[in-house]
Formats: sequence, C-alpha cells, structure tokens
Amino acid sequence: MAGNSYGTLFRLTTFGESHGEALGGVIDGCPPGISLDFEAIQQEMIRRKPGQSAIVTQRKEPDEVQFLSGIFEGKTTGTPIGFIIPNTNQKSDDYSHIKEAFRPSHADFTYERKYGIRDYRGGGRSSARETASRVVAGAIAKQMLSDVKINAFVSSVGDIFIDKPYQDLDFSKIENNPVRCPDEVTAAKMEELIRSIRKDGDTVGGTITCVIQNVPIGLGEPVFDKLHAELGKAMLSINAVKGFEFGSGFCGARMKGSEHNDLFNENGTTKSNLSGGIQGGISNGMDIYFRVAFKPVATIMQKQTTIDKEGNSVDLEGKGRHDPCVVPRAVPIVEAMAAIVLADFYLLQKTYK
Amino acid sequence: MAGNSYGTLFRLTTFGESHGEALGGVIDGCPPGISLDFEAIQQEMIRRKPGQSAIVTQRKEPDEVQFLSGIFEGKTTGTPIGFIIPNTNQKSDDYSHIKEAFRPSHADFTYERKYGIRDYRGGGRSSARETASRVVAGAIAKQMLSDVKINAFVSSVGDIFIDKPYQDLDFSKIENNPVRCPDEVTAAKMEELIRSIRKDGDTVGGTITCVIQNVPIGLGEPVFDKLHAELGKAMLSINAVKGFEFGSGFCGARMKGSEHNDLFNENGTTKSNLSGGIQGGISNGMDIYFRVAFKPVATIMQKQTTIDKEGNSVDLEGKGRHDPCVVPRAVPIVEAMAAIVLADFYLLQKTYK
Amino acid sequence: MAGNSYGTLFRLTTFGESHGEALGGVIDGCPPGISLDFEAIQQEMIRRKPGQSAIVTQRKEPDEVQFLSGIFEGKTTGTPIGFIIPNTNQKSDDYSHIKEAFRPSHADFTYERKYGIRDYRGGGRSSARETASRVVAGAIAKQMLSDVKINAFVSSVGDIFIDKPYQDLDFSKIENNPVRCPDEVTAAKMEELIRSIRKDGDTVGGTITCVIQNVPIGLGEPVFDKLHAELGKAMLSINAVKGFEFGSGFCGARMKGSEHNDLFNENGTTKSNLSGGIQGGISNGMDIYFRVAFKPVATIMQKQTTIDKEGNSVDLEGKGRHDPCVVPRAVPIVEAMAAIVLADFYLLQKTYK
Amino acid sequence: MAGNSYGTLFRLTTFGESHGEALGGVIDGCPPGISLDFEAIQQEMIRRKPGQSAIVTQRKEPDEVQFLSGIFEGKTTGTPIGFIIPNTNQKSDDYSHIKEAFRPSHADFTYERKYGIRDYRGGGRSSARETASRVVAGAIAKQMLSDVKINAFVSSVGDIFIDKPYQDLDFSKIENNPVRCPDEVTAAKMEELIRSIRKDGDTVGGTITCVIQNVPIGLGEPVFDKLHAELGKAMLSINAVKGFEFGSGFCGARMKGSEHNDLFNENGTTKSNLSGGIQGGISNGMDIYFRVAFKPVATIMQKQTTIDKEGNSVDLEGKGRHDPCVVPRAVPIVEAMAAIVLADFYLLQKTYK
Repeated sequence: MAGNSYGTLFRLTTFGESHGEALGGVIDGCPPGISLDFEAIQQEMIRRKPGQSAIVTQRKEPDEVQFLSGIFEGKTTGTPIGFIIPNTNQKSDDYSHIKEAFRPSHADFTYERKYGIRDYRGGGRSSARETASRVVAGAIAKQMLSDVKINAFVSSVGDIFIDKPYQDLDFSKIENNPVRCPDEVTAAKMEELIRSIRKDGDTVGGTITCVIQNVPIGLGEPVFDKLHAELGKAMLSINAVKGFEFGSGFCGARMKGSEHNDLFNENGTTKSNLSGGIQGGISNGMDIYFRVAFKPVATIMQKQTTIDKEGNSVDLEGKGRHDPCVVPRAVPIVEAMAAIVLADFYLLQKTYK
Repeated sequence: MAGNSYGTLFRLTTFGESHGEALGGVIDGCPPGISLDFEAIQQEMIRRKPGQSAIVTQRKEPDEVQFLSGIFEGKTTGTPIGFIIPNTNQKSDDYSHIKEAFRPSHADFTYERKYGIRDYRGGGRSSARETASRVVAGAIAKQMLSDVKINAFVSSVGDIFIDKPYQDLDFSKIENNPVRCPDEVTAAKMEELIRSIRKDGDTVGGTITCVIQNVPIGLGEPVFDKLHAELGKAMLSINAVKGFEFGSGFCGARMKGSEHNDLFNENGTTKSNLSGGIQGGISNGMDIYFRVAFKPVATIMQKQTTIDKEGNSVDLEGKGRHDPCVVPRAVPIVEAMAAIVLADFYLLQKTYK
Repeated sequence: MAGNSYGTLFRLTTFGESHGEALGGVIDGCPPGISLDFEAIQQEMIRRKPGQSAIVTQRKEPDEVQFLSGIFEGKTTGTPIGFIIPNTNQKSDDYSHIKEAFRPSHADFTYERKYGIRDYRGGGRSSARETASRVVAGAIAKQMLSDVKINAFVSSVGDIFIDKPYQDLDFSKIENNPVRCPDEVTAAKMEELIRSIRKDGDTVGGTITCVIQNVPIGLGEPVFDKLHAELGKAMLSINAVKGFEFGSGFCGARMKGSEHNDLFNENGTTKSNLSGGIQGGISNGMDIYFRVAFKPVATIMQKQTTIDKEGNSVDLEGKGRHDPCVVPRAVPIVEAMAAIVLADFYLLQKTYK
Repeated sequence: MAGNSYGTLFRLTTFGESHGEALGGVIDGCPPGISLDFEAIQQEMIRRKPGQSAIVTQRKEPDEVQFLSGIFEGKTTGTPIGFIIPNTNQKSDDYSHIKEAFRPSHADFTYERKYGIRDYRGGGRSSARETASRVVAGAIAKQMLSDVKINAFVSSVGDIFIDKPYQDLDFSKIENNPVRCPDEVTAAKMEELIRSIRKDGDTVGGTITCVIQNVPIGLGEPVFDKLHAELGKAMLSINAVKGFEFGSGFCGARMKGSEHNDLFNENGTTKSNLSGGIQGGISNGMDIYFRVAFKPVATIMQKQTTIDKEGNSVDLEGKGRHDPCVVPRAVPIVEAMAAIVLADFYLLQKTYK
C-alpha cells in the first residue's frame, strides 16, 4: 500500500536509498524450478549502470547483485527471492549543499512536506538508483517468460527522432551505440546532440519505444487492470517519465474509425495493428508496442536559484558528474518493468484454465 | 486480482454486462458521516448518459442509481456502499449479428480467446456501459474531497484543438455545449466536424484534458504508486484510451533541463508548472493537469469485412445508433476516475500523520 | 482493506445491512465455463435461513438470490458475479428500543465508537444476516471444487458433545435433524437442551466440526498464508466465533512429539492424522478437519441492564423471536467459508505449474 | 499473494531459508519520524534466539539485525525498512540425512509435492528461523504503538497449567525463568517436565497466553477483517500452532447467554470481559486476551521410520541439538505478530477520522 511493491502473483518489493547501506528487493511468487542464468541478470545490471560511456554519468557502481534466498542449486524454489545491491560508492559529503535546499523539479520538497524527514543524500529514496532492484526482478521475469521478446530502444532525443516504423529496425543493433538507438544514422545525431548539451551543462529529454513480441493471447484483465493500463502505470512509475502511449497513441486521437480499425485476417491476426496488440485490455497475439516520454534530468550544471526549508532564496549548482541524457540508461528499466507486468498477468492467466 | 476493483482504502468493485440484469458496484472504505448529495450523483450520471444531444448515441438509459447499503439517514456509515443501475433498455435481438462474428478493433476476439465464452450482447462486460458504476463512485469521491476541484473538458476532436493554455479557459462553460469544450469557437468547429463524421457513418477520436486544483501537498506514494502513475493507470483503464501524459508530457521529452525546471517561489509554489503539480510521484500543491487520448469508436456505420469464430470471412455493418465521437461523454468518466484515485491517496496520507 | 472482501484470486466482496434495501455481493475471479446449479445454491440459502424449525428463530426471509451479472446461458463467464438478496421482511419499528441503547456483548457500542454513526436496525452491518452473501459465494466455490467434499456438523451444544471420532459418523445424516448433528442420540439430547434453554429465554453456545476430504496435495502457502491460518481467519470472521483449532488442536498442546508425529505409509499417506491434513501450511492429501467454537447468542429474552449513548443506565429486554442456539444455522456458513478459502488456494496453486 | 507478506498499511514481507545466506525482510508503511530504540529491537531478537538455557536448543546464532534502508539519523523516514539477519552458523552437512527422506510431521513432504524442489537444509523456508524477521518487525511495531502493552507468557506445558486468571499474574516476572511463565511455582514444574522430556529424547507442546492492554477503542474492521480474525490468522501462521481462542474461547461454547454477556458500566467499560476486548470484530477498550496452542516439535531424538522420495521405508533419527519444548521461545514471536496486526489496524483507523 505504501507504494514499494509491484504486481500481485509475481510481486516485487524494493527498498533502499541512494546512499544507504544497500538497495534490494524481494520477489515473491516466482514459480519454482527455473534455472537462473545469473550472467544474464548481471548483464542487465551493467546495461543500467552509470559510467559506461562519455555521454552518461561517470559514477562507478559495481552494482553486484547478491541473492540471499529463494534459489537452491541454481534453481528457483518458489520461495521469495531476496537480494541486495550494496551501495559501495557513496560520497555523502557531496550532498551537504542540498541538505537544506530544495532542488528545482526534484522530489526534495515533496518528500520533506509528505514525511517531515528525508534522507537528502543523493535524493535518497527518490533517486533513480532504486531502479537497479527493478532490473534484477525484470531480468528474472524475462527468464520466466523465455518465449516472449521484449526490446526497448531510444526513439528520440530532444528533437531528433527515428523516422521509421519499428518494423524496419534491426533490434540486434540497439546495443551497438551508447544511445541505444538501432538506427545508426539517427544514433550518431543523438550522440552529437547529447555531447553538445553536456558541454552546456544542460540536460535533454527523449522517448523510448518498447516492442513486445510473441505474447500469448489472453493476457490482461478487463476493466481496471487492462494490460495497457498496467504497462502504463509501470512505465509512469519510472523516474522522469511524463507520458505513455500504446499502439496508435495520441495520433490515434486524430484519426477516424474507418482508418483506425484493425481488420482481421482469417487466422485471427490483424492486417494493421493500430491497437498495439491489445483489445479491451487483453493481448490479441499481435506485437505490443508503446512509447514512453522522459523529461530532461532536473540536475543541471548551471546555477539555479531555489529556496531552502525556511523559504529563503539560495543559489544552487549541480556538482559532480551527471547524466546529460538519462534516456539510454532507462532502456533496460523499461524492459524490466514490461517483463514484470507480463509475468504477473502470465501467472494470472493460468488460473483461468 | 481479476481486475474489477480499483483502489485500496477507497475501493470500488464493479460488476455488470451491457445487457445483463443490472450494472452495479460496491464502494468499500468510504469514511463515515458524509452527508451525500444524491442529486449531484444523479447529475453526474446524466452527464455520462447517452442520448443527450444530436451528436451522441440516442439509446435511452435512465441510469438511475439505487443505493442498497452503507447509507443511513442520508449519511455514509463507513460500511460498504452497494448500488445497482438496472439495465432497462436492452434490446438483445439487436446483437444476434455479432454472436458469431468478431467486430474489428473490439474486444470480442480477445474475450472469446481468454475466457472461451462471452456475453456477446452489446459487448457484454467490455462495453463502456460499465463506466456508469465508476461515475457513481467518482461522484461520491468528489463529495468526500469537497475542497478539491476536478475539471475535465474536451481539448481536441480529430485535428481540431483548443489552442490556449488551460489557464485561459473558463471551466464554467464546459457544460454549455454538447462537445464539452469550454472554448466556444473551438467547440463550434468540433461540433461541426462530428456532424460531418456522423453523416459519413464514421467515427473520430479526440483528447480530454483534466485539471485538478486545490490538491493538498503530499498525496501519492513514491516508487511504484506515484500519483501520476495511478492517474495514468486509471485513465488507461477507460474504454478507448490510447495515451496519457501529465505536465509537459511528450513535449517535455523534447526540452532541455534549463527550460523545463520549475523554479520555486519563496512560499514553496513554483513559477512555472511543467511538472504538472507532481514531483517524485507526490503532489506539490500546484495544479495537476493531464491529457488523455481516445481512439475513434470502433463501431462504424459502414460495411467492414471480418471473421467469425471459425475464421470464415463475413461482412458486418454497425446497426442502431452509435456515437460518432465518444469523447464528450467520457468527460465525467475521466473526472470520476481522477476523484477515485485522489480519494484513495487522500485516505492513505492520513496514516502518515 | 476496509474488511468487506475475502480472498485474492477467488474474491468475495459483500455489502448490506440487516434492514437495508438488500444484501449482496460480488464474486470476482470465478473461472469461466462453470455450469451453475442454481437449485443447489438456493438449497444452501435455505439451510442458512431462519425459521426452519421450532428451535431456531421464526423470522421469515425468503432469501432469494438474484444474480445480476457474470453468468450467461447458465455458465460463468469469468466476469464478476454480482448478486443481491432483497430484504423483504424488515420490521424496522421492532428496533426503536436499541436506537439509543447498547445491547450487552453486541457490536452496538463498538460500531458507534468506531464510526460515530450506525444503522441500529437489527444490528445493521454487524448482523449475521450478512452471512447470506457468503453462503452464495460458498455454494459457487463448492461447485468449482466439485471433487472436494466439505461436511460440517454440530459437534457440541453446551455440555453435550458427540463422543465419537468423525470417522465413525455418517455425514449423510447431518440434515436429518434440526441441530445438524449426524449422531442421532446426541442430536436428540442437543435438541432437548435447546428447547429447555429457549423456555428460559436464554441462549447457549456450541461447536461445529468441519471435515474436508479429497483435497489436492499442495494447497496453501507457506509462512503467513498457511492453509490453516486462512481457514482460521475465515472461521473467526463468522459472527459469534470465539475459537478455532485444527487437527489435534488444543489437545495437541498436551502431547509429546513421539505421540503426535504422523508416520508415513509408503504411498505418502500417513498412519495417523493429528496434523489435520496440513503440514507447514500446505495440504498433504489427508482429511482436513477443524473445530470452531461459537459463543451463546447475546440477545436473550431476559431483562438486562445496560447503558445508552450518554452512559445512562437503562433496562433492555430482547423482543421478537430469536435463536436460542445459532450453531445449527452456522453449519452452512462454516462450509461456505471453507469452500471460499479452498477456491482461492486452488486457483493460486495453478500458477505454480 | 504467495504468502510471504503480512499486513496492508504496516506490511512485512520476509524472505530467507534456514541455511541460506541470510534471512531478512522489508517493512513497508511504517510512519516517518519514529526514533528507533535499536537496543530494544536487539533485545527481542535475543529473546527469540536459541541457546539461551539448558532447556532450549544450543545452536548459536548471533541473530544480529542489519538495517539497510528506511532509517536516517536514527529515525524512520517513511520509506521501506529493509533488513537482513545473516545466517552465520549453518552446518549444511548436518542435513544430508534428510535430503531424500521426509521427516514425519514436517513440511518436507508438502514442500516437495507443492514445488517439486526444496532447500532441504534445516527445513529451508519452513524452518521457524523465518520468525526472526517477524520479531524485527514486531519490535518496530511495538515502538510505534508505544502506549499499548503486549505481554505473552507460557500458560501451559504438556499437562501443567497455570491455574490462575491472568489478572492475578505479575507480567514483570515473565522473563525471570527460562520457560517464560510468570507464576514461579508452575514455572518450576514446567521446567522439570521439559528436562525430563529432553532426557527421553522427546518433545512436548504447550500454550501461550497473550494479553494486550491499553488498546484504543475502534481497531478492527467488521465482517472479514475482524480484529480477532486477523489475530487468529497471525498466530496460526506461526510454526507449530494448532489452535487459537480469544476471550471465553472454547469454554464460551459451553456457556449460556445469560452467563456470557458482558454487562456495561456507565463509563462504557464492561463488568466482565468474556468478549476478550473485542465486539463485532472491533476493540472495545477492554483487555484483549487470547490463547495459542503449540504442538510438540516434530523433530525428536528417537528413531522413527519414514519414507524417502521414492516411497522406500527408511529409518531416521534427529541429530544435533533440538528444542524439547519450543513454546518459551515462541513468546516473543506471539508478541511480535500481535504488534504487527495492531499496527496495521491502528494505521487504518486513522483513515476514518
């Protein structure tokens, strides 16, 4: 209820602050007997990790997952999987300047007013470092859903967009460049933009597109827990996300029914797929695809005027090394949350048989 | 878990098919001692009701709510509020043509494949008629949150958009026209477009903008149950919704941090509000605003080729009277779901004090 | 959260006060495709109904269930089953004497203090009339679990106990007498005791034993949601229940391990069954059996001194016709709650396969 | 859903096997601003710890809690409290003899059949070692509920019972002896019995009585989530528990209404308290008291014949040092679970105001 759990049958609970002892989580409901590929899990952690290239933050975090339970001789046992990711690289002194001041467009102010107390170091619980725990659970969910293919990629940075439908992209190229854009020409432009933004001490937003293929028909519940409603919540729960659309999305709102309807082939597939693989909240077997909007990171390397707890005006400047564009690093997080949502519905669907 | 409940502390469970005996619901967790304004509830039902003007469907439904429990001498008692809305106007014979055939871009196919059985009459459980129950709960949630102001309106139909910020609109004019657009000039154009679409037997999509004012600081939970993540899920759970964005939304993804950050005034308000009243998933006291995309209604008055259960190709044509544009009628539903989400977080926030 | 729902995958939500318009409920998560036997459901309602014999209350309630949704052409559809049971026989004027006064050992005082308002007529929400909704859901759960046999019976009234193990009883005789005791000699003594108690205007408690046979191995979750822990909660949620024990129960607390351990047969069954069919919270395939203690009904036909809302001393005397012993009528309620608990775990167990 | 969480607003999720890396848990929903007394928490851990006296198991476990999150400068922050308790003293080789064989009246068989895989070392997840995590959460719940007094004690071992009402006992003497019985004469007899049982390589059961004082009026939800129903579930979720009764309990089932009713004093307290401080599922301000039955520990130091996975008959003998009577060590666990249940209802009750 206090908001640190996701899912019902496949349920992740996370804990941990950016500069506390450790982050971690508990995955409850993972079915027994799954042989885990620990290297694949660690690989996802590396994808999310900062400091991988010149265009992302240089903070070094080994982000090594320690599994504490729920696994025996390499297999899941059906009991809860507890894990921790120690915070080995905190420099708490870096954060004294924000002990009293509220950074603009950060959660400092709202945490202070909601709880009356906050761990100000590095954003505490509001830091995107929390998403490391999601990536662990997502990596396990992916292994559970081994037939389903989940590919996310950066589809825009600032005003630079991929101008092709996802069907024309080669997902195997996503990891070929630091922006995680499978279209090489666009990737180069994005990278150039981010370098220029970085030079200015500024940040920039972008979008991620996620395509989920090979989803069984029937996942998702009608009415409140529609598949796309849960995917939307899951994406909107990621730090810095401002919007979500699936299938035709906001474009669909400009269309006519005669253009928008997906006509059936005789085998039950559809000729077009403006529905985005979901009808009435339930997967129809076609590709699920959606787009997620990320705002620019609020911490900029420029001086900003803000207020402290007493309402006094104070000047603030970002310190250390920060991401000019967080979107490439968010790609594995989007995939992780998608996997967690699907895992939950996949288990639920078994109860209908 | 099966998806027919929303909320935890203020919890709505709905039931009912389009052409069954009755729709209804249970509201559990409504605090005791609230003097209900039943006329205001019925007024919301009328707003959602079809057949109010030439531009919406002509099906007559009295949609009279019968409260069965949880209210004593006009006041809530803290026990669950059960209610029903009888289906008095079903014409089941209208639907024989879709008994075997799957309407394109409808939930017929996915329900059939998920459950192996479906009440095909009028869409059964997948019909937007279900939202009548949400409007009841939303109307009660609004009364519980009497200080909070929730105003939704149609901000676009097809390619016709309001070209003003919401601050320049007069919400008292929303109900002045059948499209529920507070800008009169735009409203006239929208109405004209819908009439023309109707003449063609076609349908058209649109967007609704919702503005929530006077929200206490501190609502929303960090991490998974962020205020905007729940609002997003709630909106995406409404029939025909394809997208959700709040604050700067998808536009924010094109901006720089130096443009996007909301600087503080000394009293804790912010000079701009691209954040949309929410920081780190928690309300900051500024206006919350978001936009919801609706696809065009799938039922069109034109002949379409589709398939039946056996995969045979069949021709299908919409019968009876259908909405050329469902967006105006969705305005009270958007408000209702927003109220339900806020009511739940409002109660939760009390536990922190 | 507010306590009017039970179960997660097979989830019952109830509403309704003793003297309101109607009782009712919603069953969410019932699998699709079950052909319902409506006569069997009504039969369970009749078993719970007051006024069936000289030894129980004479209030007439037809208790006819009206199903409103979730059923199509006699089969469940997988959508929520909404139902109501109209209150046709309320005599509200009967209850004016308890409008201001708190009946001893009733919920009048605690409801008043918890909510600040209460529907005092007939006990309102605290009345055992609410259990009618549970019996509906239990009857459907029984049909879903058609292989499982659930038999409850009255094992004691006051100091009169059945002195045989359940294995020596013939469950087909349970309904042969108004006390629902399968041992005829004991039944006659119980009936006599109840008549004598009734003559005195008094009431008497008793116990119900429930035996569940043919349960699949593996139901129940370890740690918090142990099968017997949920059965215990379900039973303790029934009005007037004061205790629950399963298997060896309180007697087991007096035994030695060398006496208490259930040794295995080679086929995995056990020679004894002091465990009561559950090990580590999980069914082991042996009979599950438990015992439930009911206090004597608090409403007696004798004058009692009590207090009103202002703390003034007032005299109170039970009016109308009341049960001298509620235990026989609780038999179908015990079975219903057992069926609901099993249905939930049965569905959950499918997610492990 | 998979059973490793308890509570809704104050929610504990536990993980960990007896012989894995570590046990641990997450407490979500603990209100912010509570100054934690860490020594008091550790003190509760010591109470639960084995090896404290000659009559309990000699396995040494430091059981040191490491808090990883949710606490800042000694105070709770409102974010989830993650903690671990490393397993420093596992001797995995001790357990090879039960790798293939199912111990009688243990969870070995049911885990194997439910999951198809199990961590057999020391009972894995089914070990009572899991309750260490509950004691951590209970200790924090106690601090949150600082006005409420929760005292549990051993009220019987085998056939030796305290023969006084709890009102005649001095709770400050509970910790004076290794059996945790506040009545010194009875304690001596219990201790003697346990020593004799130990000498025989046998085990013995017992009961714990718990008294909760100074509970605010109004805790507990009517219908399914009655205060005593949750207390019952919480107690029945503790390893080896076979029964639960509150107030008059099973004795109440033998009484008449005229004897059982608790008459009011003019201040709203009651003259007697057979109700056990709860009416209609809601606390009435009187002492809450209940009794919990524990079976004798299944692991005995005598040879038993059992079966292995293939159904072959094998001989088994307990190894190492085991508790002849687990009941004294269960006292802090009973208190912990009671505190967790109350904390949850306490927070919920705030939402009604």
